[in-house]
Amino acid sequence: MAETVAARTSTDRDDKTVRVELGSRSYDIRIGRGVLETAGAEIAAVLPGARLAVIADETVAGLHLEAFSDSLRAAAIQHTAITVPAGESSKCFREFERLCDEVLAARLERGDAVVALGGGVTGDLTGFVASAVRRGMAFVQVPTTLLAQVDSSVGGKTGINCRHGKNLIGAFYQPALVLADTAVLDTLPLRDFRAGYAEVAKYGLLGDADFFDWLEANWKAVFADGEARDEAVARSCQAKADVVAADELESGRRALLNLGHTFGHALESAVSYETERLVHGEGVAIGMMLAHEFSERLGLIGDDTVARVRAHLGEVGLPVRIQDIPGQLPPAATFMDIIAQDKKVSRGALTFILTRGIGEAFVEKDVDPALVSDFLEEKLEA
Amino acid sequence: MAETVAARTSTDRDDKTVRVELGSRSYDIRIGRGVLETAGAEIAAVLPGARLAVIADETVAGLHLEAFSDSLRAAAIQHTAITVPAGESSKCFREFERLCDEVLAARLERGDAVVALGGGVTGDLTGFVASAVRRGMAFVQVPTTLLAQVDSSVGGKTGINCRHGKNLIGAFYQPALVLADTAVLDTLPLRDFRAGYAEVAKYGLLGDADFFDWLEANWKAVFADGEARDEAVARSCQAKADVVAADELESGRRALLNLGHTFGHALESAVSYETERLVHGEGVAIGMMLAHEFSERLGLIGDDTVARVRAHLGEVGLPVRIQDIPGQLPPAATFMDIIAQDKKVSRGALTFILTRGIGEAFVEKDVDPALVSDFLEEKLEA
Repeated sequence: MAETVAARTSTDRDDKTVRVELGSRSYDIRIGRGVLETAGAEIAAVLPGARLAVIADETVAGLHLEAFSDSLRAAAIQHTAITVPAGESSKCFREFERLCDEVLAARLERGDAVVALGGGVTGDLTGFVASAVRRGMAFVQVPTTLLAQVDSSVGGKTGINCRHGKNLIGAFYQPALVLADTAVLDTLPLRDFRAGYAEVAKYGLLGDADFFDWLEANWKAVFADGEARDEAVARSCQAKADVVAADELESGRRALLNLGHTFGHALESAVSYETERLVHGEGVAIGMMLAHEFSERLGLIGDDTVARVRAHLGEVGLPVRIQDIPGQLPPAATFMDIIAQDKKVSRGALTFILTRGIGEAFVEKDVDPALVSDFLEEKLEA
Repeated sequence: MAETVAARTSTDRDDKTVRVELGSRSYDIRIGRGVLETAGAEIAAVLPGARLAVIADETVAGLHLEAFSDSLRAAAIQHTAITVPAGESSKCFREFERLCDEVLAARLERGDAVVALGGGVTGDLTGFVASAVRRGMAFVQVPTTLLAQVDSSVGGKTGINCRHGKNLIGAFYQPALVLADTAVLDTLPLRDFRAGYAEVAKYGLLGDADFFDWLEANWKAVFADGEARDEAVARSCQAKADVVAADELESGRRALLNLGHTFGHALESAVSYETERLVHGEGVAIGMMLAHEFSERLGLIGDDTVARVRAHLGEVGLPVRIQDIPGQLPPAATFMDIIAQDKKVSRGALTFILTRGIGEAFVEKDVDPALVSDFLEEKLEA
């Protein structure tokens, strides 16, 4: 039975493929239930003869490493598995150094590849390692969370954290292949699925009103699994791929993907990244609400639009206001400091992603800090 | 007087400019006596409004930082200087982490720039820092050794060392500008100047017989300073720029630049990188001799060619045989292990740069390890 599954190619199933167009660095994202089982064949087709170092956190290794290794063995791919502790704290210089050393200890050469099997933390950390070892090994992303499948595994942003903030050290480094098995999301805790869904909804809100309509009608099926989930992942990846193809290094349009993220990152930072209180996707959900409310404050949209966004995010179970975060929060002045130090600052001016309606987000590079401060003060007291 | 010099633009002088053609990442190398004095104006022209973090080792900072800072102040460029200990041991994870932190502590934003003021160690380390902070800051190279001016500052190879070997962790990351002041070479110790000259001679040997002829006739003037030195640096940079433009990521032709380097790196490794015994350029000089002798052994060139190369490298004072290295060396088997672990290995086969004559080097990807081993054994006993 296992052999049958492993020998089956994904073309026998109803997999979806999204192409990220980046010239000589273009790559495919394969999306569908069971992609993990045929991962070996997919990788061998793109990187013939490559040996692999597979990096996974301990949790994901327990859940999915055996199936992934089976699939690699079925394709006769030599590989070494390296595990990292689960959690954001692994995105650090120490683990970066250790993993670089371990990949070299496995005697991988140019032409071999490094694989990230896991969520966003594993993908970000592993991608930076892949970019740096021998000045760049081939890299494969096998994202196992919804957040990683629709966001962090696509587009080539890799990195680690340092004492000055998150993701401040890293590289733009594109994978050669992304394999998104939507069946592995069955084992994802509901809270993490919801958090990933915030990024799915983001693609509708920032540039595709039809997709947002579709999500309002189909979100239950996306959570339940099956075709609608694959469709939501594929449309999200396509949306991100389009933006990345137009602006790989985030000099312009790519900033739209940060809708909700300036406020969201500030909230995550304000709770010291304690995931019991707030995970990234929840920060993005509240951040998107704040971006819409701030756009309303500036007269860009009406309260009906704000209400519609709040209704949908609330319906799926995401937090929609600052007060949904348990525990005390710092004053507005602290948030302003965090925002000022955020890397989406350009020569001192505040850049925000604002919106003129569902699917009509835009980059505003010259937002008056005093307006943001007043707005946040009010929201914190609400 | 100082103001006059600082206000003078390099176009008043007889500077040479070499353009590295890499599409949107193209950049100029400015070469001439006194380029350092007008560095501020040059940088401001390429990176208007950028603030700088200037990284220099303690030795170079003592010699040149004040003049460089004066030039930046004359162009009203805000900057922070960060020093690192002199020497190869600074190319490590610890310094990489510290410098990333320091650049962020200086609150540099996207659009600001990191400057390497120094030799190859500073350039390699600083370039990797520039590539990684905020996933890539603008980067300026101000090489202060001959080796750095003609080799390491051009082409975008950056990196640090780790326990598995040298330069195994890094990035291909191009500078926005290279400023090579040939007057600063006046303060360079003769041994270091000679070591850099080995790379100059390499460009003749690998692809430009006319340049090698010219060097045979003019090397004394190159060592003495003045026009011939500028000419040698510019022709070397042009040679490297041509190769890099054709093969930025070293998938083919760029490997020619490694003429003498496989043997040279093995020699450096064999003496544990003790620079009292052997510096990089000296290893390259002996390595180039070995590459020619090995090419003779394979019947590719005659002994007259070998003699001519040996005569020129010997004449300028470079070591030309393994026995010129003081102290004991390990047996041939150890060299073979080092060569096998060298990153210029592809799927187990040994790659060497061989030659069919002066200026006619080529990449041979399938060299029989037994031949190399026998050859080295003989050379070690000679």
